[in-house]
Amino acid sequence: MVDPNLDDIVSFERKKPDVYGNAHPKNLLRSIMEDGECLETIANQHIYSADQFDQQTLLQLFRLAAKYEANPDRFSASLRGQILISAFYEPSTRTRLSFESAWHRLGGDIMSITDRSTTGIAKGESLADVAEMFNNYGDCVVLRESNESSVKEMMDSLRIPIINAGNGLDEHPTQALSDLYTIFKWRPELAQASPEHPIDICIIGLPAKMRTVRSLLKLIAKFSTAFNSVTILANDTEENIFSAGQKEQLLASGLTVNVSQSFSDSVANADVIYINAITWEGDTFQEYGSQFKLDAKTKLKTDAIILHPLARGEELCASLDHTPHNWYFAQARGAVFLRQALLTCLVRRTQRVLDII
Amino acid sequence: MVDPNLDDIVSFERKKPDVYGNAHPKNLLRSIMEDGECLETIANQHIYSADQFDQQTLLQLFRLAAKYEANPDRFSASLRGQILISAFYEPSTRTRLSFESAWHRLGGDIMSITDRSTTGIAKGESLADVAEMFNNYGDCVVLRESNESSVKEMMDSLRIPIINAGNGLDEHPTQALSDLYTIFKWRPELAQASPEHPIDICIIGLPAKMRTVRSLLKLIAKFSTAFNSVTILANDTEENIFSAGQKEQLLASGLTVNVSQSFSDSVANADVIYINAITWEGDTFQEYGSQFKLDAKTKLKTDAIILHPLARGEELCASLDHTPHNWYFAQARGAVFLRQALLTCLVRRTQRVLDII
Amino acid sequence: MVDPNLDDIVSFERKKPDVYGNAHPKNLLRSIMEDGECLETIANQHIYSADQFDQQTLLQLFRLAAKYEANPDRFSASLRGQILISAFYEPSTRTRLSFESAWHRLGGDIMSITDRSTTGIAKGESLADVAEMFNNYGDCVVLRESNESSVKEMMDSLRIPIINAGNGLDEHPTQALSDLYTIFKWRPELAQASPEHPIDICIIGLPAKMRTVRSLLKLIAKFSTAFNSVTILANDTEENIFSAGQKEQLLASGLTVNVSQSFSDSVANADVIYINAITWEGDTFQEYGSQFKLDAKTKLKTDAIILHPLARGEELCASLDHTPHNWYFAQARGAVFLRQALLTCLVRRTQRVLDII
Repeated sequence: MVDPNLDDIVSFERKKPDVYGNAHPKNLLRSIMEDGECLETIANQHIYSADQFDQQTLLQLFRLAAKYEANPDRFSASLRGQILISAFYEPSTRTRLSFESAWHRLGGDIMSITDRSTTGIAKGESLADVAEMFNNYGDCVVLRESNESSVKEMMDSLRIPIINAGNGLDEHPTQALSDLYTIFKWRPELAQASPEHPIDICIIGLPAKMRTVRSLLKLIAKFSTAFNSVTILANDTEENIFSAGQKEQLLASGLTVNVSQSFSDSVANADVIYINAITWEGDTFQEYGSQFKLDAKTKLKTDAIILHPLARGEELCASLDHTPHNWYFAQARGAVFLRQALLTCLVRRTQRVLDII
Repeated sequence: MVDPNLDDIVSFERKKPDVYGNAHPKNLLRSIMEDGECLETIANQHIYSADQFDQQTLLQLFRLAAKYEANPDRFSASLRGQILISAFYEPSTRTRLSFESAWHRLGGDIMSITDRSTTGIAKGESLADVAEMFNNYGDCVVLRESNESSVKEMMDSLRIPIINAGNGLDEHPTQALSDLYTIFKWRPELAQASPEHPIDICIIGLPAKMRTVRSLLKLIAKFSTAFNSVTILANDTEENIFSAGQKEQLLASGLTVNVSQSFSDSVANADVIYINAITWEGDTFQEYGSQFKLDAKTKLKTDAIILHPLARGEELCASLDHTPHNWYFAQARGAVFLRQALLTCLVRRTQRVLDII
Repeated sequence: MVDPNLDDIVSFERKKPDVYGNAHPKNLLRSIMEDGECLETIANQHIYSADQFDQQTLLQLFRLAAKYEANPDRFSASLRGQILISAFYEPSTRTRLSFESAWHRLGGDIMSITDRSTTGIAKGESLADVAEMFNNYGDCVVLRESNESSVKEMMDSLRIPIINAGNGLDEHPTQALSDLYTIFKWRPELAQASPEHPIDICIIGLPAKMRTVRSLLKLIAKFSTAFNSVTILANDTEENIFSAGQKEQLLASGLTVNVSQSFSDSVANADVIYINAITWEGDTFQEYGSQFKLDAKTKLKTDAIILHPLARGEELCASLDHTPHNWYFAQARGAVFLRQALLTCLVRRTQRVLDII
């Protein structure tokens, strides 16, 4: 028999807020002055490491991302006729769909590789030869590979840009760009030259072994004006916590770096808590940090926000989803617009989406 | 040496009839008066169960499908800029391609997930989190999942419409819509308020365990004017044949319901024979009913038609393919247009394809 | 710390030559007079065997490919609204991406099948039924299958064109078309009725068991004016080297056919060396010919070129990549344009890209 509640079950309301928190990008858009030339420097680069970006380029990227996010239906044809090769030799539905959505939103076409076992690489083909193939078939490559060195090997032979979408434990620069973009949307004044209230960020886990954190710390080092301090919350020795040069880069930029084992203190004093339970061991993932769990009862500053690159495990309780601390959904949503901005620059279509005065 | 018959082998004739039988939709198109408002009610709904549709909505959907089928090249841009997430966690090339073809025919873009083992769900990610991801990346979701409850769990978190493309043994509503659309194309007068010659349908198998049949019976219950009787042909007890409430729904609508074990009688007296050899047991498929097989020698009414959701097994012999009883190919073909109609309504582009007077 | 060489590492130069050698197609384009009618004959054909093409059709196809290659951004909408079904039941990322790139470059949409194990065929569905499904869902099919007879079986039921993209050890006609297109780009005068300097080609391996070679020899037989001699370099008996009728077809066309076991003599005297290490044994690949290896030290004619269908193994050393003998990269690149030409003809959009005077 027909379920009497069927009407309620099947109805949905598209007008519900897309994100929690005041995540609309319009204030960020206003707080950064447009400088298109800055973005053109990206057009000659592969995106390999967070270290490639300077402060000005980052701000302009965030501005363009905010522009897309504020006008999601406006630039739907800027990549028409362009082909993305979406090569996920290490499977990742979430990251793949985020990139592919960004590309499609701009009107481009996509060819996906989602199964390494059937590729030439699995049969011994060199990465240089694969790169040569990509040169002929597409206009841009997004690569996810467990092997750290693969992206670099391909870069040697590519005449089209490649984006490192996660290479082993090394880096995941576009994730870090999305993370910082989220923080700036939350507090647009941090984009100013001398913000009145720089923030404290607490990162849970081992920066040495978390590629999203590795890339994020490199970006934070470019914004010592916006950050007061970086606290690493981890039950381990400094030797295991940091990789070579990692802490030094933060200190050299003028940031205060703390290491703490006290969960409650660290999260209670932070403006931004960055959590992720995944670390790299050898060539695969391990869970990390089941001793550090955030839920709705965790004592946080009233206006603190939580970031998480997702997918999540037990470390981030769903009880937080409907609180104003939840900016991880806004972070996931913003990643599409950030990637739209980056992709537009890479394939030299920037002029199509900038205001020409 | 060159095969002397090569020319004959490689030539094809695109002008061959696309379907057997008089399956052109123009008579159905004429027999239903357009009522666009009716279709707008679908825009606020996920498509979960055949029970969602009332008679008027069904007729308007069929009318729109007929319009697409009669003018296949006319509305090729109505979904431009829209992204479909085609999530087939239970693989099904046929259903996937049918939906993807419908979406592409309307100018939209697609992201496909065809391998459950590499997804976050396989690694323990909650369906609510997957749904949140889909909210950010696409405009509509088509989901095929062996797990009955998955689609409902996603519906809770989605702000974009989802279509149930088969959830375990439960339902497959768009298949049933396509089935009924085929019947109405064959006999457009059945769409009238009081058809002169209501028809008898014979369904071979266990309605309790066949999701396409479960959905179809729910639709038939909305059209007691069009159907005289429903005969279930099955070698089993009523207890196993019907699930709870299934027979009662048909009876409540005023239909005559028969159960028969006599193959020859049942098929010889039916106007429509619906056959399918697949039943659900636990969380997988079983073959059913090798004792009931249709072939060109089976005695049928001269103008009876056979429907089958395909792919077929031994139960439906290819010897019937070139007879006028073959409406299963027309059924498969029409499914694309029916899905075009439904998708257009779901993503609120109905006004682009309706006649505005 | 930041790598001081990062800027160098991440920069790329899109203006590097796309191919080695003087591979620009403009001379070939000029040397063939346009004859559009010739191409329309292809519109009624499946592409099954290299034997289907006569000399005039081949030249016109090459002309159209050269036109695309010379103007890669000009015809980007000629397949808009058309859907390709890219069915790679035997996985092949390289060939799949080449076809998909060609289709996307012309503005069309694509549905891919990359995993045979999840298809109806794996569950026992007949190829005729799969073909019937394809009729309803797409406008053109590209099929790669280990089973030789599959493509023929599908052809029987298809009302849309299918392209054989490799069927077991039998044929791979579009690879051969790309190979010959490369040779004609290199020496456009070979397209003349009576070339002054016909060339000598050396093929390394067993033509009987190499599908790309099987198709290529059939095309060469159409151009006895352009080729002086065909030398097969193989350590085997003639019985194993040639399949039935293979040598006879070459001889009947007036070509000189040599069989040699002397590596150094054969390659030193050839204008074109065609190498590939893959042969078919039963229903899978085997490596062949590790005794024959080309590298930068191999003595070749100064202006000789090397062709290889890729992916390569040890038989073709990367030390040749930066020499003028390397035309295998140009061959891979040209394959996209050749396929654009063929696909345009198959789906009857030829008139959109021909010059109308």
